[in-house]
Amino acid sequence: MKNSEVNDKYLSVALAAANAAGNVIKDAFSSRSKHVEHKGTVDLVTETDKKCESLVLSLIQETFPSHKFIGEEGSAAQGFTAELTDDPTWMCDPLDGTTNFVHGFPFVCVSIALVIGREVIVGVVHNPILNETYTAIKGQGAKLNDAPISVSATCDLGTALIATEVGTSRDQETLSTIFSRMKTLTSAARAVRCCGSCAMNLCGVASGRLDAFYEIGFGGCWDVAAGKLIVEEAGGMVLDPQGGPFDVMGRRVLAGNPAVAQAAANILAGCPVSALEPQASGHQ
Amino acid sequence: MKNSEVNDKYLSVALAAANAAGNVIKDAFSSRSKHVEHKGTVDLVTETDKKCESLVLSLIQETFPSHKFIGEEGSAAQGFTAELTDDPTWMCDPLDGTTNFVHGFPFVCVSIALVIGREVIVGVVHNPILNETYTAIKGQGAKLNDAPISVSATCDLGTALIATEVGTSRDQETLSTIFSRMKTLTSAARAVRCCGSCAMNLCGVASGRLDAFYEIGFGGCWDVAAGKLIVEEAGGMVLDPQGGPFDVMGRRVLAGNPAVAQAAANILAGCPVSALEPQASGHQ
Repeated sequence: MKNSEVNDKYLSVALAAANAAGNVIKDAFSSRSKHVEHKGTVDLVTETDKKCESLVLSLIQETFPSHKFIGEEGSAAQGFTAELTDDPTWMCDPLDGTTNFVHGFPFVCVSIALVIGREVIVGVVHNPILNETYTAIKGQGAKLNDAPISVSATCDLGTALIATEVGTSRDQETLSTIFSRMKTLTSAARAVRCCGSCAMNLCGVASGRLDAFYEIGFGGCWDVAAGKLIVEEAGGMVLDPQGGPFDVMGRRVLAGNPAVAQAAANILAGCPVSALEPQASGHQ
Repeated sequence: MKNSEVNDKYLSVALAAANAAGNVIKDAFSSRSKHVEHKGTVDLVTETDKKCESLVLSLIQETFPSHKFIGEEGSAAQGFTAELTDDPTWMCDPLDGTTNFVHGFPFVCVSIALVIGREVIVGVVHNPILNETYTAIKGQGAKLNDAPISVSATCDLGTALIATEVGTSRDQETLSTIFSRMKTLTSAARAVRCCGSCAMNLCGVASGRLDAFYEIGFGGCWDVAAGKLIVEEAGGMVLDPQGGPFDVMGRRVLAGNPAVAQAAANILAGCPVSALEPQASGHQ
């Protein structure tokens, strides 16, 4: 197969897996028959989450038995790893926006990415409630429901709509840091949104609904890998919130159209980071 | 006509007006051909906003020529007033979530309420992008797309999903107060959402997606009148954020299922209010 055919195959398997998981999410979302277990004070994991991950895993393993996996729920399952190598590795969040899911808030999605040689090659983010499927193949642009998308043209941070999240930590120092950062950026921007899904926030940037999104201390690479490619293929920029290079394993992200992302990074670079938050690469 | 027939008539006119405005919003939302004027630093008013208000106004005036109006954009138009009396008075936000609208973020809606004897009798909130229409007639329950809805059963603030907004003020004292309040409540709750539409937040509470919503310093009564009735008819409680009675003209609201609303009020009562924010009734 040609390289482009291989990538198309990766995308079609990722899409099939995302749709299968999406159907499970949609059914559970509407029936609201959810069995919720607690994971820390405010983080949730549901039966649906686990069911979706095993569905995604089995569909991918069927076609690509030698590939590796890094997933939110499945570190003990076959083929799973916590380390990123150069080998083909799928990063999957079977249900991003778990709290939204539990409460019936429509920002929930499946996020699936394939990383080869430490580069994201294919990304799919599928929201089965809002019927939105974001896809990207490296070098081929980003799409929402098969139509090309691009980041916003907003040049000025003062007219920008920024998204972030308050996270799940309830440590007072971390919360103070998070809200102080949010206040500093809000002072310079038009408005701020917190909708509870990292992957949906990234897709919001890619489709131009949001001018930028940042978060320090989200769950893991599975939250950002697909969205990172979708943003870049939509003409956006993905970097460390304090301006350095983005590290998919670093649990720190800033994405936006290039002008707003750079302006936000300039402000965030001056904001403190709590000792309990992930630090910028090289300073850990 | 019987009283119930009169109320049905009010609702059907409100719905027709909401749908007409919703169609204008939907067309403009998808074409993104918007001519934005600035209203303050971060607040926006668009052609669509004005077009929707005059559409709503003319449809209501046709049927109820003696009724009064309080609307966001139309204080100079015929029949408009800034004072609430006992007379039948329509409160209309033709486009709630203007910033979302400008950025293509899907939380936008038309909000229409009829107030008689200072009580909200009919409320309609219509989101033409997500195809959600929330309605209520006093004493007859609340509906989403014609199906009955009710507030959540969450008893404990610690597992509650709370919404608020950071508002449009960029005065540093007010922003500090807003973020300090948000931090205090987030410390006690599961998570916080900011989605940029007061009326949609109230409907989120009514449909159980959110356990509570509070805001101090939103635009005016047109943002909350319809949603207030929809929350109450869904079994929820609407009060002042610091625990006193709700005043539709006060630009301060807390809504939630009764348990979470009361718990949130207990916390918010201890939070300071900036001198530039609207004060609780009786202290102004």
